[in-house]
Amino acid sequence: MEQDNISQDVTSQLLFTNQVAETLDGIVEKLEPISVHVLVDANTASFVLPRLQAESEVIRNAQIIQTGGAGDMHKNLNTLSGIWQKLSDDGATRRSLLINVGGGVITDMGAFAAATFKRGIPFVNIPTTLLGAVDASVGGKTGINFNTLKNEVGLFADAEVVIISTTFFRTLSSQEMLSGYAEMLKHAMLTSREMTDRLLRYDVTTYEPDSLLKLLKESVNVKCGYVKEDPNDLGKRQSLNLGHTFGHAFEELALERRSPISHGYAVAFGMVCALVLSHMKEGFPSERLHTYADYVRHHYGVFAIRCNDYDRLLQFMAHDKKNAAADGLTFTLLKDEGKPVTGINVSADDVKAALDIYCDLLM
Amino acid sequence: MEQDNISQDVTSQLLFTNQVAETLDGIVEKLEPISVHVLVDANTASFVLPRLQAESEVIRNAQIIQTGGAGDMHKNLNTLSGIWQKLSDDGATRRSLLINVGGGVITDMGAFAAATFKRGIPFVNIPTTLLGAVDASVGGKTGINFNTLKNEVGLFADAEVVIISTTFFRTLSSQEMLSGYAEMLKHAMLTSREMTDRLLRYDVTTYEPDSLLKLLKESVNVKCGYVKEDPNDLGKRQSLNLGHTFGHAFEELALERRSPISHGYAVAFGMVCALVLSHMKEGFPSERLHTYADYVRHHYGVFAIRCNDYDRLLQFMAHDKKNAAADGLTFTLLKDEGKPVTGINVSADDVKAALDIYCDLLM
Repeated sequence: MEQDNISQDVTSQLLFTNQVAETLDGIVEKLEPISVHVLVDANTASFVLPRLQAESEVIRNAQIIQTGGAGDMHKNLNTLSGIWQKLSDDGATRRSLLINVGGGVITDMGAFAAATFKRGIPFVNIPTTLLGAVDASVGGKTGINFNTLKNEVGLFADAEVVIISTTFFRTLSSQEMLSGYAEMLKHAMLTSREMTDRLLRYDVTTYEPDSLLKLLKESVNVKCGYVKEDPNDLGKRQSLNLGHTFGHAFEELALERRSPISHGYAVAFGMVCALVLSHMKEGFPSERLHTYADYVRHHYGVFAIRCNDYDRLLQFMAHDKKNAAADGLTFTLLKDEGKPVTGINVSADDVKAALDIYCDLLM
Repeated sequence: MEQDNISQDVTSQLLFTNQVAETLDGIVEKLEPISVHVLVDANTASFVLPRLQAESEVIRNAQIIQTGGAGDMHKNLNTLSGIWQKLSDDGATRRSLLINVGGGVITDMGAFAAATFKRGIPFVNIPTTLLGAVDASVGGKTGINFNTLKNEVGLFADAEVVIISTTFFRTLSSQEMLSGYAEMLKHAMLTSREMTDRLLRYDVTTYEPDSLLKLLKESVNVKCGYVKEDPNDLGKRQSLNLGHTFGHAFEELALERRSPISHGYAVAFGMVCALVLSHMKEGFPSERLHTYADYVRHHYGVFAIRCNDYDRLLQFMAHDKKNAAADGLTFTLLKDEGKPVTGINVSADDVKAALDIYCDLLM
């Protein structure tokens, strides 16, 4: 049985296993909750819950809470209120357990619901997407979108346990796999050239569950390291923001164009820009920039922009709360693979120059 | 300047002062928030805010958030959502400060809003009622009512500072003063006969601000001691529940009769019952029971009940989450003043006997 444990001082216990039902039943037996409640969305209700109900006694006997839909548009106060209502109506107490089964939307929102129900009940997260497993599973960020702003309402709260498995990914599209993989590539670049090369060679679209689980564990471990050092996201943890300043701006521009792109894709494209800036400002090796850009062009394609989008992109970057600086913008960059630097001040002209090169590299 | 400090390991810094504006301006100068937002309800908007605006530069320059009404019926998701909305619209960031000015409803709800806005912004509480100052100011319990249940949604969160002053009480009725005073009497009984006697001699309806501030500080300090020892309310802190099992049942019966009574009055009456039980089960001195019952009858009157209310009261007690026991009910009782005992199992017959004696003593 492939199972292992990352102990974290500041966050939840992480279990990596492809024997989910067995693992879950063992955990719940130890936690001894008075009642068990399982949160799913439309997707996990169809594709994941039936299997879990067949294999896990805990899930079979649990009360089910199904949200109205799936996706980020449902990560709102209305859905949250429905979860609280169902917990309350089903008689959940402070000694009940909530198990969140789904992507980042479900685990973020379910965790927030649990952390605020009767001043906090324990919860377990079971991410069912690669992006959720690699990104949302660690760090305790929970919440909902509010007033059209992402994660405007939320708090830091830790799951009792997060169970990470690659067996849930079989119903995901290649695009969904690549979306999560962009964050894994980011973790690799923050760590070493060796790790990056291993990931660039691996084909995530035709993955084999156990080998991917191993890579995933290594990747999540990178994030754990940063979170442990800086749980409140005030310093070192901002390394994890690599590629995200550009990435968020791309996401918002795409939303404005009414053809949204997924978070992971935006990060993949944003990383190209961040590496260009890293080359310009911090001497990141040009050859490695080209290796990564080729990979992105080949697997992700391109998010097409034109010169007259630059000012709008700069506006989005200036509004991102993580980039606040008196003048100009601040970025996380790389001196080299494994050598991140945070809080680097960059002028608008340099950002535009980087966007020019991004276009040259990918378009 | 009468000002002092109770340092608490587990909760907020408490400042006792009748120089509120000056104190507040000093605190905010140290906290250096990017923006200041002040939460008030209809009452504090009329009776407290104008004075604070005249005296405090911080409040004068702050953005005001006024809830739709005042009172427990407004402590709901709708009001909470309005607070989040206003914070968001007014551009509050993680480095903004929310100052909650009001009774327990405002400080509980404002604290919850702050603790969950952008995963938590700092907040300061300024209780403006005696009940809020003595009861809601310490312990970090925040939240809203939901699904007709009190504080069904909430969490533990600590204010940066709580400023406690008796100068706000001048617009309160004698009834509101007595309501808060019931909790002060409870704290005294948990502490010593000497403290109880001092409070029984003091006339809270014709109080002088500085002498009341001194008593208030002593009283809040009692609560701090219990909270410090048991922040998550799992053991020793349950001493603070003295009188509340009966008290909550009286409150709910009153609500069902459609003539609600205030929390403090319910506690005053509930304490009489708890002392009767304490006498029956733990040898609490009969003479002190009579002293307290006389005081309550004289100052609070009586909450009238009849024999055919007993079963309904027992049902309410059984539903109170704090009294959970396999069979029967559990109570916090006193062996003597200053000698609380928690988790005492009591049969329904003994509860009924105590209610009989309550009727004899007060009616």
